[in-house]
Amino acid sequence: MHNFPQLQRLFLAYLEQNQFQSKPHNLYAPVNYIMELGGKRARPVLLLLGYQLFDDHVARALPAAYAIELFHNFSLVHDDIMDEAPLRRGRPAVHERYGTNAGILSGDVMLIYVYQFLLQVDRPDLLPELLQTFNQTAIGVCEGQQYDVDFEQRNDVTIPEYLHMIELKTAILLAAALKIGGMIGGANAEQAQHLYEFGRNIGLAFQVQDDLLDTFGDPEKFGKKVGGDIAQNKKTLLFLQAQAVANEHQRAELDQLFFGTGVGEAQKIARVTELFVECGVKESAAVLQRQYQATAFEHLAAVGVGQERKAPLIELAELLLGRES
Amino acid sequence: MHNFPQLQRLFLAYLEQNQFQSKPHNLYAPVNYIMELGGKRARPVLLLLGYQLFDDHVARALPAAYAIELFHNFSLVHDDIMDEAPLRRGRPAVHERYGTNAGILSGDVMLIYVYQFLLQVDRPDLLPELLQTFNQTAIGVCEGQQYDVDFEQRNDVTIPEYLHMIELKTAILLAAALKIGGMIGGANAEQAQHLYEFGRNIGLAFQVQDDLLDTFGDPEKFGKKVGGDIAQNKKTLLFLQAQAVANEHQRAELDQLFFGTGVGEAQKIARVTELFVECGVKESAAVLQRQYQATAFEHLAAVGVGQERKAPLIELAELLLGRES
Repeated sequence: MHNFPQLQRLFLAYLEQNQFQSKPHNLYAPVNYIMELGGKRARPVLLLLGYQLFDDHVARALPAAYAIELFHNFSLVHDDIMDEAPLRRGRPAVHERYGTNAGILSGDVMLIYVYQFLLQVDRPDLLPELLQTFNQTAIGVCEGQQYDVDFEQRNDVTIPEYLHMIELKTAILLAAALKIGGMIGGANAEQAQHLYEFGRNIGLAFQVQDDLLDTFGDPEKFGKKVGGDIAQNKKTLLFLQAQAVANEHQRAELDQLFFGTGVGEAQKIARVTELFVECGVKESAAVLQRQYQATAFEHLAAVGVGQERKAPLIELAELLLGRES
Repeated sequence: MHNFPQLQRLFLAYLEQNQFQSKPHNLYAPVNYIMELGGKRARPVLLLLGYQLFDDHVARALPAAYAIELFHNFSLVHDDIMDEAPLRRGRPAVHERYGTNAGILSGDVMLIYVYQFLLQVDRPDLLPELLQTFNQTAIGVCEGQQYDVDFEQRNDVTIPEYLHMIELKTAILLAAALKIGGMIGGANAEQAQHLYEFGRNIGLAFQVQDDLLDTFGDPEKFGKKVGGDIAQNKKTLLFLQAQAVANEHQRAELDQLFFGTGVGEAQKIARVTELFVECGVKESAAVLQRQYQATAFEHLAAVGVGQERKAPLIELAELLLGRES
């Protein structure tokens, strides 16, 4: 059995062995660039951890782990173009470094290679089910990105709609990683589904926590600028919850701060944060976060393998969810 | 057995049944728009014709035919963004009508649905081989597009490099359509490979003919503006052949006309066309076109099914290659 850092190293070695060496150079250089930018590699490691619940030969799951990481990075490359994001992990985004066209085309070829790596999984009996699971997830991720884009133009987004969006955009890829890992390792259909639900709920908890930390995080520990979501008028869970419970005066002030003009950024962040506190959203979001987390661990318990097999997975989940706890 | 128009109708009925009705609307509306823009539907019909060489129940090959058409349209959507092409089949390109971001994201979801439709092919035994064939082709199409982009910046493109680019960008998708259709219909490996080579050579012949018609076509019959490639300084086969055989004076004039300034478009087209004639490229390109065509039909002959089974396929190939003959 391997722990999180060991699986990370195993994955990174596989990543290095599978660098894209083919021609044309201008197509594959951006792929190598984004794949080597780093990150926690949470998705592929979750997949390996899902496998490891059932079997020790984790190397067997490496092609699928690689496919998941490739898909995640493909979506980052295309999302960064759509969001006009200049930076990714502190370095120039692909489209900034290589141009938008290179970002589009290199992203496309990454998505095709996802399927090449899924094909390399040495379980041909599982291929149809594995592709079904992956395709549904990949389609969902695109739909989530579209909802995110749509929500920017809408002023009537509901909390369930928002939760559905983050579920699609973030949570289901973690869910699919765990489920696919489990399937390859030998999980039965019920176990695979519990793993999916574990991952989905961990993902939702993680995303709610991300919204919370963006406003209430410790600036020393939070990687990004605290208050960034407010500065960008993002309709996060906190904003939607505040809108839902605010009285008339609070709602008018919130709308004015978000959609009006004339308030400096620092003052805006400070006052919106106060309004969030007044509306009790810090607590209500934290409650939701804990509920997702509890549901997640109920599903993990229901997978029904020994506790010692689950230990590294629990460790990673707590790492993802405990950045400030 | 069905002929080309019958298979076209069969495919169009399937297309209509499989409109994208899911939400979010802004993700799927562009998909329906591009899929309904029309065209000859040559690729899916070639796939059905490949199937029909071996079996009469062509409906069985419809999901794969749809997948190929979806992939082709995905590549059009993304290529039109990269090429900044405002029009597609005389209508606004997807990114012109729905915006660049919609073009990127809707293209992405199309590519994922390609695999959903390939999964629907009711030959699970064939799935790994079918996906291998498709993936290699799709990767090649991306590589071809990258070479096309790269060649715009280069002044030392060779004729073999150019032919390899059009092979990847155009010919191999026709090849894969025929091969996949044949495989689903029951072709053995050797027959499938001959079908692939038939399609690849037909595609190359078609593309060489397209270069020829762009300069020497009958304006009445040619869909696009005659001389368009010259006006846009495209390094087509004709240009590369002319460069290769031109004497010093001709080469200097050709370079001046292509890369210099000060000549009006009509005059430029007229003079470059004359230089092409002087260099004999009309004949040398036509020879190459006929060679590809002859090779194609040798491979079709080697497939070894009855002549009457092949009749509709030969009819379509002649339609594709005989627009002016």
